[in-house]
Formats: sequence, C-alpha cells, structure tokens
Amino acid sequence: MAILDPAVADPARAEAHDAADPLRAFRDRFAVRDSDLVYLDGNSLGRLPKATAERLRTVVEDEWGGELIRAWDHWLDLPVRVGDRLATAVLGARAGEVVVSDSTTVNFYKLALAALDARPGRRAIVTDRANFPTDRYVLEGLARARGLEIRWIDPDPVDGPEPRDVETVLDDDVALVTLSLVNYRSAAIADLPAISSLARAAGALTLWDLSHAAGAVEVNLDAGGADLAVGCTYKYLNAGPGSPAFLYVRSALQGELRNPIQGWFGQNDQFAMGPAYEPVPGIAAWLTGTPTVPALAAVEEGVRVVEEAGIGAIRAKAAALTAYAVELHDAWLEPLGFGLGSPRDPVRRGAHVAIRRVDARHLSAALLEQRVITDFREPDSIRLGLSPLTTSYREVRTGMSRLRDLAAR
Amino acid sequence: MAILDPAVADPARAEAHDAADPLRAFRDRFAVRDSDLVYLDGNSLGRLPKATAERLRTVVEDEWGGELIRAWDHWLDLPVRVGDRLATAVLGARAGEVVVSDSTTVNFYKLALAALDARPGRRAIVTDRANFPTDRYVLEGLARARGLEIRWIDPDPVDGPEPRDVETVLDDDVALVTLSLVNYRSAAIADLPAISSLARAAGALTLWDLSHAAGAVEVNLDAGGADLAVGCTYKYLNAGPGSPAFLYVRSALQGELRNPIQGWFGQNDQFAMGPAYEPVPGIAAWLTGTPTVPALAAVEEGVRVVEEAGIGAIRAKAAALTAYAVELHDAWLEPLGFGLGSPRDPVRRGAHVAIRRVDARHLSAALLEQRVITDFREPDSIRLGLSPLTTSYREVRTGMSRLRDLAAR
Repeated sequence: MAILDPAVADPARAEAHDAADPLRAFRDRFAVRDSDLVYLDGNSLGRLPKATAERLRTVVEDEWGGELIRAWDHWLDLPVRVGDRLATAVLGARAGEVVVSDSTTVNFYKLALAALDARPGRRAIVTDRANFPTDRYVLEGLARARGLEIRWIDPDPVDGPEPRDVETVLDDDVALVTLSLVNYRSAAIADLPAISSLARAAGALTLWDLSHAAGAVEVNLDAGGADLAVGCTYKYLNAGPGSPAFLYVRSALQGELRNPIQGWFGQNDQFAMGPAYEPVPGIAAWLTGTPTVPALAAVEEGVRVVEEAGIGAIRAKAAALTAYAVELHDAWLEPLGFGLGSPRDPVRRGAHVAIRRVDARHLSAALLEQRVITDFREPDSIRLGLSPLTTSYREVRTGMSRLRDLAAR
Repeated sequence: MAILDPAVADPARAEAHDAADPLRAFRDRFAVRDSDLVYLDGNSLGRLPKATAERLRTVVEDEWGGELIRAWDHWLDLPVRVGDRLATAVLGARAGEVVVSDSTTVNFYKLALAALDARPGRRAIVTDRANFPTDRYVLEGLARARGLEIRWIDPDPVDGPEPRDVETVLDDDVALVTLSLVNYRSAAIADLPAISSLARAAGALTLWDLSHAAGAVEVNLDAGGADLAVGCTYKYLNAGPGSPAFLYVRSALQGELRNPIQGWFGQNDQFAMGPAYEPVPGIAAWLTGTPTVPALAAVEEGVRVVEEAGIGAIRAKAAALTAYAVELHDAWLEPLGFGLGSPRDPVRRGAHVAIRRVDARHLSAALLEQRVITDFREPDSIRLGLSPLTTSYREVRTGMSRLRDLAAR
C-alpha cells in the first residue's frame, strides 16, 4: 500500500482540484443533462458535444433535407479532411496520413491483411493475448485463411507489454507486430517507439490499435516510428455511438501497401466509373464504400473540441485524474480487498483505471443503481473511465465513495 | 418511335396522374423544403423522411446525450431488428436472413469472399461488365489475390443480362455468379429466379446487388432462389447519405458460409471477450465492428415508410412513372436526337430511366441551373430517378419539358 496523505479523502481536495483544472470550462461544451449522474464510462462512449447536436441538425435537415444530392460536393472530402485534422491535432501524424472510414474492425482487417501481403514470405504475427477481442478475432481469421502462426505474448496483466516481451518472439519470420497502445482493460501504455523500432529492425510491420489512446494520451505516430494504426472515435473523441473509425498509413509505406478491399471510394477518378480499379493517390486509397456522412461530421466536431483543448493539456489531466483515483483506491478500497488493475506509474497509464475485486460484476451493477456509471470487464475489473474534457474530480470522488460504501456492506 | 397519343404532353395529364396516385399522400411524409425544385435523383440520394429528422434528434440528444452508455441495451439489437423488418417488408426474405451493417462495398466483399471460400476448388467468377463499379473493383481485387478468373458477360446495354448470357459461361469451374438486380445505368432488371437456378444447377453461388432495387421493385429473394445479396439504404429506402447497407444470407447457407472479417460484433457472447472467435448463431455472425447507431435508426425509419406504403404499390407507381417518362421522351426528346437507355418493357425496368444523347453531361449541368436535379452517367446518359414515394408526375413533366427546351436550343 502506498503511503497516504490523510487529506486525500477530504472533499475539499476534489473541489480544489476542480477549481485549479485548466480544462474545467470544457465540461460546459458538452450536453450534461443530469448533473447528479456520475459518468465514469467515457472510455466506452464519450459524451455528446453541444456543437455536435447542432451540426447534426444542420447536416440532416439543411444539407440532406435541403441540398439533397448537391451536398456531396462538400461531403466528398470529409473522410480526408477530418483525417487531416485528427492526424495533426491528436495523432502526431501529418496531413495525408490518416483517413476516417468504416469501423475499427474493418480498418484493422484492411491494414493487417495489407501488411501480410507486403511481407509474403513471412509466416508469423505477433500480438498480445490481452489485446482487444476484435483485433484478436480478426487476426485469428487471417491466420487461418493464410496458414499463419500467431505468436501470442503474455505480458504482465497490469503493466502491459514490455519491449522485451516482443523481442523474445521476433525473428525474420514475423510479418506483423500488432498491439494496443493503451490496453482496454488495464490502461497500460505500450512503448510504441521501442517496439516499433524492434519490429522494423526485424523487417516486420507494426499496426497499433489506438482506440483507448486517441484523445486521451499523446500519440506520436510519425516520431515514434509506427507503420500503421487504427482506432475508434466514440471514446475520447466523443463522436457518438458507432461513429466511423480512423486509420493511419505512414506516408513512406503508402506506395507499397495496397487496400485489399477495392471499393469505389478508393478509386482514382471515382465517377468516371472506369473498367479497372486504379487506387487514388494518397490516403484516400484506403476508403472502401460510401462513408456515413452525418457520423463523419460528428467526428469532425469531436476532434475540434480536442484540438482546442490541446492534447498536452488533456494528457496532463488524464494523469492527474487517474492519480487521484489511485489515491482514493489506496485510501478507501484497498483496505476492503480491492487491488489496482492499472499501472501505478502515471507515465504508463492511459485515462482509465481498473480496480479489481472478485465481485466486480455485482458491484458495477449496484453502482449503476446508485447513478454511478462504470463498466465491468471480465473477470474481476471495474473500469473507471476518466474523460479529461468532461470528468470532474468531484465526480471521481463521489463515484468512488459510493463504491466504497457498497463494498463495505 | 412508338405511336404517340397526342395528349401525352398535355399538362392536365400529369395533374390527372397525380390526382389518381394512391401514394400521393406519402410525399408529405418527407421534408420538401423547396417545392419548386424538381428532384429526379432519388436513386442517388433519397429524400429525408420527416420522422427520421425527429428520430435522429431523439437518438442523438436523448439517447446518446442523456442515456449515454446505458442506451446500448436497446441499441445492440438494431442491426438484426432493422434487418428483420427490411427482410419481410422489402426483400421477400424471412426474419433472420438480413442484417444491416457496414457499407455495400464491405458487405459485398464479405459475402463474395465467403462464397469463394465455400467453393474452394472452383476458379472462376461470373459478372457483368456493366455491373456497378464497386462490385467490379472488389471482384478484381479478390480474383488477383486468389488467382481466379473473372468471366465477364457483355449483355445488351439497354435491356441487361439474359439468363442465356450467364448460361454460356457457366461450368463446374464457376464458384460465384454476381449481378445487380437493377442495373445502375439502364435500370434493366435481371431475371433473378432463372439466373439463380442456372447457377445453382452448376454448383455456383449467386450474390445479388440490390442497391437500385430495394424499395423500388419487388425483390423475392427467398422465392427466387437467391443465395446471397447486398444493397444500400440511401436510395429508395431514404436512410440518408452513407447510411449502412444490408446483407442477406439464405438461411440454408448460414451454417456453411463464414464471415471472413471476424469482428467482435459477430462473436458469440460478445462481452465475455473470450480467447477464441466463435460466431454467434444466425445472421448476426455477419456483423463486424461497432455499428453506427444513429444511421441504423435512420434505416429503421426509412424502411418503416416503405413498409407502410407497401412494396407492391411502390413497384406499380415506379412502372407508371417510368412509363410516363418514356412517353415524354418519345414525344419530346427522341425527335431531338435522344435515345432511350432503359428497357421499354416496364416489367424489365426499375424506377429510373436513362436517356441518352452525346451532350448528356452538359445538359445535366444545364438542367441543374434550371433547378432540375438529375445525374449524369458516363458516357452519354442522363438518369432520371423517379422515387415512387416522393416524385410526382408533375415533377417528371416539368423536368423533362425543361430538358426539351434546353436540348432544342
């Protein structure tokens, strides 16, 4: 147990943190209908920005309803335009390296398959047994279809993968190394630069899942040496349920890799509808079918708020909010038999905190009845998603005090 | 040239048709902001149903904004629930055979690849050189990846594929026959039952693209013997720009075919997040990633309007509207050097009419300036999309009279 400052649990401490929070004004940019609800699940579904509600009315009622097909003149570039903004404001990439399209699953499939196609002699994929399910399932399907081996690494369940975990299974038979930057359960951050560098030295490509990272921590795709990445926009980017995902292809690889799903939105001179597929130059080659326009507009609004707050300030608040949650865990919950399921080092931790006890499923359900929304992850974790733009310290304290009271019964 | 009734061009004829139209009240169910605009492009983007604008406000502001993550309790079954409604009201299929998911392109890829996997010894795909581009491009990618041959048929460009066009290239090396039910350019309807039967007799699977058919003509997937189908919802189903697509897998094939994109939304007991992929029983196995919830709700509203009008009445009006457009073409345009690019037989024609002249691109642009929206398709076609729920006979007459005046200059 950490050494505790006796003032940790003092409600004045939460108030003081909130008063000093440089991002506190951003909460008002979101529709918060019910100020008594404690929402600690922004890592599953981020809140609705007020500007998004307005934008969606415009897109649906004025653009679709009024401009009709003519609106495609300004809708067509949305996937690339929103991708450019996301690249530069959130992902540490350049314009022309990111596009918004499809779901994370479909993007992961496209990039993983393209990577395997680009390393045809190699017969192994490296990933983490604790990786997000959809990534594991897609890989399992690709490995079966192509007769490949998956080399599973089993990193520490709390602190996540270390470069050495990858290094020990890397050799010149590995085509692809794919990991989540922030683990969906523990929030452990993987060392993207070190692992990307090891993979590159072995001749393998890297594919990073940024779903729990984008909009929560700084992601330096270009500087870190990542090859490929995907991620969702409905968590810390606040773009709404099932909003389209993004994908990143390092510019140096764009001439080498090819989208395996050859759709008309990736076609050069699309409306010529020519006889043979010829990919459009640049990142738009990774589009497939017709993008969902209102949902893309919602991504643009979500990214705009993150851009305005600044990813540096967001990351700093994520570290501070999660540190506060860890302190409260240590003060209130550890004595009741809980254990921390997230790294203690804030540098290694994303914007959520997992706390573990054997009855986590029951406790998460009981919290919901007390108007505290968290989520449960098998087998024994309650995840507290602390969304830097919308979660207050007071909310964290209230939620955790209700959990303490429930757990103490 | 057909023999003309001299009254064809009389404006009173359009008024009389509109007065007698059993679907005329449905136009008021849609947001028509600008009653002077002649919109003949509902086959590219259908109009906004008023109920959809309302539903989207509810989904975004009350459900996402207010219920937050708790709304997934009722969102989760949307893809299957909307699919069931679409199956029974529009597609001549049964509940459990259709799901709404991804784009048409991605669904086409999933089903085409699954069909090829199910016929592993066969090395050929049959399709139409005039098929919609995204279908051709996806097939080209799959054929290259697997070393397969595409056997292109070249049917009559106006009347579309005949069963004998397919029959001549069918043999026991064909894995997949894939066609559009209604051609995107000519509106020619293919003989789904006859072609499906020929393919089945040869041991091949059929995959039908219903994008220009669903909500415009009767589609009898089950009775017609189709194996697989996909289609979009933003044309005659009026679900909005880039709304999610549907796919159909005949129930008898559901145990045999396997989704090649193994995502978490196709996983049995999804939130157990177990170690290995095990497809959920039934049509939901064809889901991939997180579906776009507001867009799915818009599909539900769009299908509801079609269901209420009845696909039989819609199909009858499509035949009558297109027949009227053909009459006006013959009376006004053929003498000016136009030719009909759609079948003369209404039984063989979907809900749009292509009219051809060498300067079609210029004429379509000039019509837009006169507030008549059509679209141009390479090399020489103006498509008049006549959406039975929203297009009036008067609108058809006004649009075509402006075209006549422009073309006569």
